[in-house]
Amino acid sequence: MFEELIKKPAAWLTGEGKNSEIVLSSRVRLARNISSIPFPSVAIPEEREKIISFVNKAVQKSSFLNGGKVHNSSEIPKLDKDFLVERHLVSPEFMRGSNNKALYIGEEEKISLMINEEDHVRIQALNSGLEIKSTFELADKVDTELSNTLEFNFDPDFGYLTSCPTNAGTGMRASVLIHLPGLVLTKEIENVISQVTKLGLTVRGFYGEGSDVLGNLFQISNQTTLGKSEEDLIESLEKVTNQIIEYENNSRKTLYSEAKEQIEDKIWRAFGILRSARVITSTEVTNLLSALRLGLGMGTIKEIPLGLINQILLISFPAHLQKYLNKEMEPNERDILRAELIREKLKSSI
Amino acid sequence: MFEELIKKPAAWLTGEGKNSEIVLSSRVRLARNISSIPFPSVAIPEEREKIISFVNKAVQKSSFLNGGKVHNSSEIPKLDKDFLVERHLVSPEFMRGSNNKALYIGEEEKISLMINEEDHVRIQALNSGLEIKSTFELADKVDTELSNTLEFNFDPDFGYLTSCPTNAGTGMRASVLIHLPGLVLTKEIENVISQVTKLGLTVRGFYGEGSDVLGNLFQISNQTTLGKSEEDLIESLEKVTNQIIEYENNSRKTLYSEAKEQIEDKIWRAFGILRSARVITSTEVTNLLSALRLGLGMGTIKEIPLGLINQILLISFPAHLQKYLNKEMEPNERDILRAELIREKLKSSI
Repeated sequence: MFEELIKKPAAWLTGEGKNSEIVLSSRVRLARNISSIPFPSVAIPEEREKIISFVNKAVQKSSFLNGGKVHNSSEIPKLDKDFLVERHLVSPEFMRGSNNKALYIGEEEKISLMINEEDHVRIQALNSGLEIKSTFELADKVDTELSNTLEFNFDPDFGYLTSCPTNAGTGMRASVLIHLPGLVLTKEIENVISQVTKLGLTVRGFYGEGSDVLGNLFQISNQTTLGKSEEDLIESLEKVTNQIIEYENNSRKTLYSEAKEQIEDKIWRAFGILRSARVITSTEVTNLLSALRLGLGMGTIKEIPLGLINQILLISFPAHLQKYLNKEMEPNERDILRAELIREKLKSSI
Repeated sequence: MFEELIKKPAAWLTGEGKNSEIVLSSRVRLARNISSIPFPSVAIPEEREKIISFVNKAVQKSSFLNGGKVHNSSEIPKLDKDFLVERHLVSPEFMRGSNNKALYIGEEEKISLMINEEDHVRIQALNSGLEIKSTFELADKVDTELSNTLEFNFDPDFGYLTSCPTNAGTGMRASVLIHLPGLVLTKEIENVISQVTKLGLTVRGFYGEGSDVLGNLFQISNQTTLGKSEEDLIESLEKVTNQIIEYENNSRKTLYSEAKEQIEDKIWRAFGILRSARVITSTEVTNLLSALRLGLGMGTIKEIPLGLINQILLISFPAHLQKYLNKEMEPNERDILRAELIREKLKSSI
């Protein structure tokens, strides 16, 4: 499945958009529930099927959405589920268990819908680069299109009602995936995280809640969804993100003036290892690419364009690698073929 | 000083001789003392000067030796002392303190004499590869030449009398410098060392007694010098060394059949790091070159000839690097220029 996707960059890794060397992607998720049907966690199978059917109809009725496709999650093989998670089209939670869930993917992957995750519908809009506002506008447009057909549970005082109360209100979670190697290397990151947290934002690892920090990539999102307008939340996230970019750039300047050779050494060694390794894990690749991305940002390595760094990152993920090579493999074999594929990609680039 | 030496490989690193991919070098040292003069540790300065003068005369009288040169150690600057130690022409102990000591270096560095180290004269013969017998013959020839002029302290019962009783008898210490990455990686090395020790041999690190193991290089030498003939000791060392080479080759076969990709990964990564690093210590270079040497032995990397591996090893040592680049440097600067020099050397090779 999804053979048409594997050939092209994921929506969050096209390298387009503002500040895309530091901010990989911007994402907005809206939680929506249809009136008079229980939340998925308590709904009976027939009700869950009804929700899928309702959303499907709403999609078909919208000329904006009907180019995309709805997939019933029970039809999606395990490998493809992992693939969709790596591709940031669904949450890892969505793919655990597969009863009466469905997934909509828009034509360019910038829009997706999770049906019967925690809420009836989770609208996701995703863009490369620092594009929080336009990403919100895209999610908002999808919300409007679906609202033409579906009646969402909305309380004039509380706003949108959601399965988990922490999402009630706007039902919105806006986030950026940001690359902060400078702040990590100068050990300023803890301080920045603590400041960001005080401003009502949450900092998480690569794959969201509870995941480890990988490759110096951090997810920053709004914590509260209640008592503030979508516009206020978006503006606040954008402002803080710009502030963090400035901190990151300052820490890179500090590194460059105080430890130029050590930083360049780190960057070039990463390049050398990627060009040479015969066995390599996805985690190591992510960390080494962090150094290359830093090298590109600092002007140390000009040989490798951002698009190639992003491509290698994506096709190194276990499910992407297997789909890219069209072969299911055990971890050991993956580590060998991943190393081979990366060497090929880097050979043709220089 | 010693500008003519820096341009060419050290005698122990020419890559010539038998099994030189595993046995880097063979060395024989003979301890000799001139009759009726106290050992250096108790001799007065005038007596020590007399010894230097006697040896000098003996060298001049020998057509076999008089192409070399005697240097008074007080005339040798600190950097050059370190250089001579790295070059295995003198012991580290010989270069500590500089009163009334002298050093003779033969035309091809294969012969050297330490005058007034622990004994009046320490004859050293040094060859690349597994050449214990011919190296002993060379040392023996020097001994004979010096004996034509000097009367060495010899007791018909005990043999040669030496400053430290552990050297009395033959006064001989024969050793090989051997590269055993296979036994280290398969964790068989401890077992091999314990067997070798039981056979009356000593296993030491790279720079002899008390030094750390570096780059999987081990020095194996005879422990006893008393009660056995030189020929017996030489034969025993040669036999054990051949046995160890066989163990090493077997462990490489095991590695190749059980962890081919992991070993090749280690080898290629070492190559990648050497080609890419911007800051690198001598210790790291020694360890990475161990992987390249293994790669050459196993046929994994054919691009880098043994001569180049040996050259990089030698000019990476701190004093060699400074003499090679003709510039005294602090460690930080050395690490940067070492990385640069290695990149250049490897670029021209592939």
